[in-house]
Amino acid sequence: MMVKHAIIVAGGSGMRMQSTTPKQFIEIGGLPILMRTIKAFYEYSQEINIIMALPADLFSRWEELVEIHQFRIPLQLVKGGSSRFESVKNGLQEVEEGIVAIHDGVRPFVTSKIIEQCYESAEKYGSGVAAVLPKDSLRRVTENVSLDRSQFRLMQTPQAFTSSTIKLAYASTNKKDFTDDAAVAENNGNKIYLVQGDYRNIKITTPEDVIVAQALLESESGFSD
Amino acid sequence: MMVKHAIIVAGGSGMRMQSTTPKQFIEIGGLPILMRTIKAFYEYSQEINIIMALPADLFSRWEELVEIHQFRIPLQLVKGGSSRFESVKNGLQEVEEGIVAIHDGVRPFVTSKIIEQCYESAEKYGSGVAAVLPKDSLRRVTENVSLDRSQFRLMQTPQAFTSSTIKLAYASTNKKDFTDDAAVAENNGNKIYLVQGDYRNIKITTPEDVIVAQALLESESGFSD
Repeated sequence: MMVKHAIIVAGGSGMRMQSTTPKQFIEIGGLPILMRTIKAFYEYSQEINIIMALPADLFSRWEELVEIHQFRIPLQLVKGGSSRFESVKNGLQEVEEGIVAIHDGVRPFVTSKIIEQCYESAEKYGSGVAAVLPKDSLRRVTENVSLDRSQFRLMQTPQAFTSSTIKLAYASTNKKDFTDDAAVAENNGNKIYLVQGDYRNIKITTPEDVIVAQALLESESGFSD
Repeated sequence: MMVKHAIIVAGGSGMRMQSTTPKQFIEIGGLPILMRTIKAFYEYSQEINIIMALPADLFSRWEELVEIHQFRIPLQLVKGGSSRFESVKNGLQEVEEGIVAIHDGVRPFVTSKIIEQCYESAEKYGSGVAAVLPKDSLRRVTENVSLDRSQFRLMQTPQAFTSSTIKLAYASTNKKDFTDDAAVAENNGNKIYLVQGDYRNIKITTPEDVIVAQALLESESGFSD
């Protein structure tokens, strides 16, 4: 069994939220989104080495929240960069051998099942990346054509890799506009293996998303899946 | 000014809902989803010729709901077919000259602004189809590659066209597996013009969607856009 790391990327400054509270600190059901996300990993396994990349100017606010919520899950705090790419790169410096799952701090609804399958796929094939089928029809605007959506996937996180693979991939490029880790890994010649994500594994980035998240949280016990 | 028609496609049997109530009849905020959708068009303009395609075995249930909710928006009921394609085709038989917007019965959050822009685009260019940028990163699984999501759009409805264009397009094919009207129009050689949709313009197809819809509805007055 390989050592499991998780890099929680909590780099956003919350500008899309029109809110003074950075989005990762907004509370749903009485707990900041970011703490819910970390809890999801801790509930999957207490053995995971959790690394959290957060903008340095939010460190003191985080410490306050830790006290307020008596949040006792052990983790290592690292400085977030000016882009997602840099935040992940900073996190990866703290990762030794094993497998590492990179996960958005604002995706608190990730399940133990998805986390497990991402790690398992990474251990077996080198990568395991959560993804879902688009629900809506899809077009390519450049050629202005309808597409067969069954050939496409919308990417979520976790995106898990063997540590050496993803460290090498992040070290091999200076382009910072990758939108996910799979693209960085692929850019370095790695094949990407997909894992079934979940439509409820939403990324909370807009005020509407917060409302949706509240509703999903309140209803969670009502589902039988 | 051309005559405006709207075909509301309410063909689903609600099987994905694990519910005896067909999804279009599920109530949110005390009113069936389908009635909310029709209201959205009526609130945009009372001059629209509304045609609703509903499975024939739901006609009597619909009439009951009309009485219960004292629903007085005038519309023409037509039989839904065994597929979305056939339902739209049945609806189009009732459409004379002008412009026609085809809309999912389970997208109640469509705004007057989107409806207007779809009709305007159709009047000007022949088509006007609501679409949004994918929020998540996108991959093509057939070639297993990351894609630039800015080149793609997730399609919503309304999808509006000049009547003659879309009637001809639906008459010209027997393939019934098109997932949207834009694909049918395109199949007959028409260029598709996109209109900015809205992430709140969701299609309610799963129990989670109903919960999200409830929450969006309750919060509607709280947004300032």
